[in-house]
Amino acid sequence: MAEAEAPNRSPEIRKDRIHNRWVLFSPARSRRPSDFKAKSNPQPNNKTECPFCAGHEHECAPEIFRVPADSTVDWKIRVIQNLFPAVSRELEFQNPVSALGDVAVSGFGFHDVVIESPVHSVNMSDLSPSQVGDVMLAFKKRTEQLQNCDNVKYVQVFKNHGASAGASMSHSHSQMIALPIVPPTVSARLDSMREYYKQTGKCSLCDIQPNELLIDQSAHFISLVPFAATFAFEIWIIPRDHSSHFHELDSEKANDLGGLLKLMLLKMSLQLNNPPFNLLIHTSPFQVDPSYAPSTHWFLQIAPHLSGVGGFEIATGCHINPVFPEDAAKILRDVIIL
Amino acid sequence: MAEAEAPNRSPEIRKDRIHNRWVLFSPARSRRPSDFKAKSNPQPNNKTECPFCAGHEHECAPEIFRVPADSTVDWKIRVIQNLFPAVSRELEFQNPVSALGDVAVSGFGFHDVVIESPVHSVNMSDLSPSQVGDVMLAFKKRTEQLQNCDNVKYVQVFKNHGASAGASMSHSHSQMIALPIVPPTVSARLDSMREYYKQTGKCSLCDIQPNELLIDQSAHFISLVPFAATFAFEIWIIPRDHSSHFHELDSEKANDLGGLLKLMLLKMSLQLNNPPFNLLIHTSPFQVDPSYAPSTHWFLQIAPHLSGVGGFEIATGCHINPVFPEDAAKILRDVIIL
Ligand SMILES: Nc1ncnc2c1ncn2[C@@H]1O[C@H](COP(=O)(O)OP(=O)(O)O[C@H]2O[C@H](CO)[C@@H](O)[C@H](O)[C@H]2O)[C@@H](O)[C@H]1O
Ligand SMILES: Nc1ncnc2c1ncn2[C@@H]1O[C@H](COP(=O)(O)OP(=O)(O)O[C@H]2O[C@H](CO)[C@@H](O)[C@H](O)[C@H]2O)[C@@H](O)[C@H]1O
Repeated sequence: MAEAEAPNRSPEIRKDRIHNRWVLFSPARSRRPSDFKAKSNPQPNNKTECPFCAGHEHECAPEIFRVPADSTVDWKIRVIQNLFPAVSRELEFQNPVSALGDVAVSGFGFHDVVIESPVHSVNMSDLSPSQVGDVMLAFKKRTEQLQNCDNVKYVQVFKNHGASAGASMSHSHSQMIALPIVPPTVSARLDSMREYYKQTGKCSLCDIQPNELLIDQSAHFISLVPFAATFAFEIWIIPRDHSSHFHELDSEKANDLGGLLKLMLLKMSLQLNNPPFNLLIHTSPFQVDPSYAPSTHWFLQIAPHLSGVGGFEIATGCHINPVFPEDAAKILRDVIIL
Repeated sequence: MAEAEAPNRSPEIRKDRIHNRWVLFSPARSRRPSDFKAKSNPQPNNKTECPFCAGHEHECAPEIFRVPADSTVDWKIRVIQNLFPAVSRELEFQNPVSALGDVAVSGFGFHDVVIESPVHSVNMSDLSPSQVGDVMLAFKKRTEQLQNCDNVKYVQVFKNHGASAGASMSHSHSQMIALPIVPPTVSARLDSMREYYKQTGKCSLCDIQPNELLIDQSAHFISLVPFAATFAFEIWIIPRDHSSHFHELDSEKANDLGGLLKLMLLKMSLQLNNPPFNLLIHTSPFQVDPSYAPSTHWFLQIAPHLSGVGGFEIATGCHINPVFPEDAAKILRDVIIL
């Protein structure tokens, strides 16, 4: 991270107004020594046997759909059930009512895997802009199906790339978990954005003036480093037009998003040497109180993992980021993709 | 984790009533394959040169105090400044007022390191009960000093053990960060506990009936696996008497806590093969509105890291735990320490 050091800057505490939480910025932290051996990013085994590869479809949990829909051996994307699900579509839904004491309900929900390419070694950033767009449209289609399932309140789309970002499978894929609850970070985000709207009459994301935080833009999206980034070199991609739900995305916008997302992944990968990262889609619950509509705005987050987190972050929910967002944005703007 | 599998259990969603957040329990998750090489826990380099070792005091940032206070070469504990602090005691305090738009204040605060033994290879669990108690009393003493500094609102005490729990130094130590803000997880905990009190007239921790979740108890503390544990084999140590602030601990209770904490660390280490872990002290801000006093109750959390987290947890704040707390408690109860 040498290029990102700005040794003369003092620590600063910034408020992430979208999530209503504080982040500590401290460039000095990036110079601390470690007496552990380098945390090598484990390389995937060279498996000849990967269940996500073309030809191994029978080793997977049941398929939900594929793209193109009528393809046989030549599929491009497969949406399948997760064989080891965190929540189960076979359980009865129980309403997680607010009750006193210990509350437990059945783990009802849907847990799917989106295989993004038939080829083992192809990363998302290797796909063409329109292929990345097709992955977005597969997320959209599956989300729309889940919207029709009673009792699903929220769908989280996420990608783990690299072992230290949590991935257990190296073949390029994302996951979708449909929950019978609205998760706490989502409620906090919605409340915080509504509060901003109440005070200003504006959506907090429509109102962003990226200035020196801007990385790039396309017809329908902008990409920037957020003012109070949780992770060093974190990137957000935000639709220019106000839109509460990711699944409002149409084909044209998906294609446009595909191009900008691919570019951001390439810049990150080139600058930071293919780091582990998470890709997260922050959207709204299916049913939102109409009072939230003018203030909720979906966006996409790319969170590289350049260092782990420790006890402080777990205990407080405050993250420590050694790289100031202005510095990260400049570095990412300056990466040239040929 | 083979012993902890309970393959016939269905996934369950539980509410952590202390933090007001949901946790997903899914034993099936522990059986998923990985095509990454085993995430080996990096071993510390065999350093002859560790600044935390006795004889290397001059390589450290300035000392704040040592235990015993009048010791020379034969100190047992040293509390020192962190050489690469996340917040700085030299900055002017700026009031982090709630304002619209982008809020940033100077990174004022204190960041200290507590070296828990003069000897490199001694872990906290190797100390005697009274030595562990002395570490607790060093935390208390430093907290009391920080309470006298204007503008410090909250002190977080935490320990990172093992590289994948965030540690960069292998010599046994903890850290203390004094902040000019109340962090978001702390506010959420306080609000959630006050809500329970409003509805029941009882403190949510005084009111815990551990039953099958109990691991052990001492004169002044109980240890248990929380009903909605965030991490597999997570342990809480809770004072029996209602107490809002960790630094109310007296010497007798510190000694008693030392014994129970040592025992829990030994059980965890033996059962889980010296896993990386965080030790966290969850206390109250210095100044709390009197309406919080009857409902806030400090406790200590031991969070082993048996698997990493992924994008789902980052996006939602919901954790996925493959081990049911009842199963973890039984296993930990049954570990015999000779
Ligand atoms: N044959 C098959 N058919 C269908 N599905 C198959 C399969 N073989 C494996 N799978 C599933 O494929 C998924 C691969 O997912 P990832 O590599 O993104 O991370 P994983 O979910 O394992 O855990 C990471 O992400 C989660 C959620 O963030 C964290 O809880 C966790 O700690 C982190 O390691 C797994 O969920 C697995 O169950
Ligand atoms: N000579 C010296 N004198 C004084 N102090 C010295 C020193 N040499 C090193 N230090 C300090 O000693 C501390 C050792 O701390 P840990 O090993 O617990 O983890 P660290 O703080 O590095 O980061 C972990 O914890 C933090 C907080 O949770 C996370 O942000 C981070 O990602 C994770 O790796 C470091 O903070 C370092 O600055």
